[in-house]
Amino acid sequence: MAVTLKEVAERAGVSRSAVSRTFTDGASVSDKMRRKVEKAARELGYSPNALASSLTTGRTKLIGLVSNNFHNPIFLEVFDLFTRGLQDRGLRPLLVNLSDEVDPENSVRMLRQYSVDGVVVASSTLPSGFAKAFRDAGVPVVHSFGRYSSAPEVHVVGIDNMECGRMAARALIARGHDNLAFMGGPETATSTQDRLAGFMAELAMHPEIKTNYSFAEAYSFDAGRHEMLRLLRKSPAQAYFCGDDVLSIGALSAIQEAGLSVPDDVGIIGLNDMEMAGWENINLTTIHQPIREIITSSIELMTAMLDEPDRYPEARIFPCSIVERGTLKPF
Amino acid sequence: MAVTLKEVAERAGVSRSAVSRTFTDGASVSDKMRRKVEKAARELGYSPNALASSLTTGRTKLIGLVSNNFHNPIFLEVFDLFTRGLQDRGLRPLLVNLSDEVDPENSVRMLRQYSVDGVVVASSTLPSGFAKAFRDAGVPVVHSFGRYSSAPEVHVVGIDNMECGRMAARALIARGHDNLAFMGGPETATSTQDRLAGFMAELAMHPEIKTNYSFAEAYSFDAGRHEMLRLLRKSPAQAYFCGDDVLSIGALSAIQEAGLSVPDDVGIIGLNDMEMAGWENINLTTIHQPIREIITSSIELMTAMLDEPDRYPEARIFPCSIVERGTLKPF
Repeated sequence: MAVTLKEVAERAGVSRSAVSRTFTDGASVSDKMRRKVEKAARELGYSPNALASSLTTGRTKLIGLVSNNFHNPIFLEVFDLFTRGLQDRGLRPLLVNLSDEVDPENSVRMLRQYSVDGVVVASSTLPSGFAKAFRDAGVPVVHSFGRYSSAPEVHVVGIDNMECGRMAARALIARGHDNLAFMGGPETATSTQDRLAGFMAELAMHPEIKTNYSFAEAYSFDAGRHEMLRLLRKSPAQAYFCGDDVLSIGALSAIQEAGLSVPDDVGIIGLNDMEMAGWENINLTTIHQPIREIITSSIELMTAMLDEPDRYPEARIFPCSIVERGTLKPF
Repeated sequence: MAVTLKEVAERAGVSRSAVSRTFTDGASVSDKMRRKVEKAARELGYSPNALASSLTTGRTKLIGLVSNNFHNPIFLEVFDLFTRGLQDRGLRPLLVNLSDEVDPENSVRMLRQYSVDGVVVASSTLPSGFAKAFRDAGVPVVHSFGRYSSAPEVHVVGIDNMECGRMAARALIARGHDNLAFMGGPETATSTQDRLAGFMAELAMHPEIKTNYSFAEAYSFDAGRHEMLRLLRKSPAQAYFCGDDVLSIGALSAIQEAGLSVPDDVGIIGLNDMEMAGWENINLTTIHQPIREIITSSIELMTAMLDEPDRYPEARIFPCSIVERGTLKPF
């Protein structure tokens, strides 16, 4: 199928090594030689082959994107940004689907077989043991949407979920409600734990406000709908901070099915600001998580780690902000 | 990082070649030898490395999934099924994002650099020139959701979109409407062209029914919403066949914003039956496209082509069926 390096060398009238050096980042080659080789390569339609180049460099240029929730629409944006970002840098995006995986060791084995240069773990629900197992196996790893820590064990790029919980509580308190609740994602997800902690911490300063919380089984429409249907059978709160946008949309569906109106009977604020949150027939008030900036920064950090695998771990935290739409009463 | 083949050979007390043969599909090795090697490999945590094995086999086990619309939620299901299907077969899913690409030659260059063993083009909007350019470059290619042809030039796995257009027309005619329309996706998409052709062919037998059609700019919520807002400013039809589900959801939003009700004022039938179509607050009547079966079959066909690259091209077409929900009047 492909034009070979040998054919390019013959056409350019140079050695094979000269062709190889021309297409190796950082290798020494004169301008004149480079022009000759590039002309021949262009004429023959030659592209340096990643497989061949990985033999000399020991690198595959494959970066894994590890995810375990392909049913949350937020991942459409994550996949789009991640693939474009890697393509722009000449890296190759490999998808790793851990939807049913519970054992970090199996995942490590799989990544080894995949020969990735590094992995971006994009999940707030995979136990942190996964990212650590990858690191311990010597795979450069960035945990996007991972838990903020002032002493991160692996590189984390994301948001301060506790602060988001506080922000949501303040937005609901400002509406003058006296009965509020958090409807989280899975209880084991660090994102849900931290959003709850922040929410409760802020409300602890308002003992006059009745406060409650519960968890949905997953970050999914069905889980959000089922949990809200259950809450509505008892005495619902006046407004809810839902764990994320897809849970919020499930909750909105349940409220509508129960014949109640949003925001008059029940208010909702979500988190993520995924594309769908802005759809006119959803119009969800939510906390904007800067997905684009998180993915870009994760890729930049991963690229840096390829040259410096033992890089000192850091946490990169991006600010969030509330997007006012139609599911909370105006102030 | 990784345990080497040499270390496994030493621990098992066998030759390196014996270890290599144990982990090469189809290579000859005695049961006793295999047990020894597998025990040593297990104890050391050794995994055969895809990069190393690609050197001996000339295969990377990378299969590209080429897509150009990361904003249509149907792709969440496609990505999930595709990655699981490949992982189950020991193949590696590489995402190729051609969202802004118009030149098949650029894409061929990129695929060459990516060293994929083959590509599944998952798109009904990429011009067929892309799949053909990949084939001409010697890359095994399967065009999923491609255009049905009785004489396919590349392997196609999908549905008969003309027949779907007829099916939608019959469903709307059966409701007793006398003013119907097709609101398609982009005019250049073969799926839209074929769905329109089938729709009009069926309605040609009903000259008493007023019939119209128009196109949205993309298969997206915004495009569907904008086109329906435009249609509602004139004299809208009683019911629409929308090009796909995400367009339908955009159209539903526009109808709701205009203060009209579905299905009493305007009926909608979509196509795909993506997960979201079944959400209770969307509840879209639609034509079910068997996504799972199409992706599974595409992967099976791709796997077969890896062993037989010159395999005679075929079209695999799966039947569709209507899922009755809430956006068309009952019969």
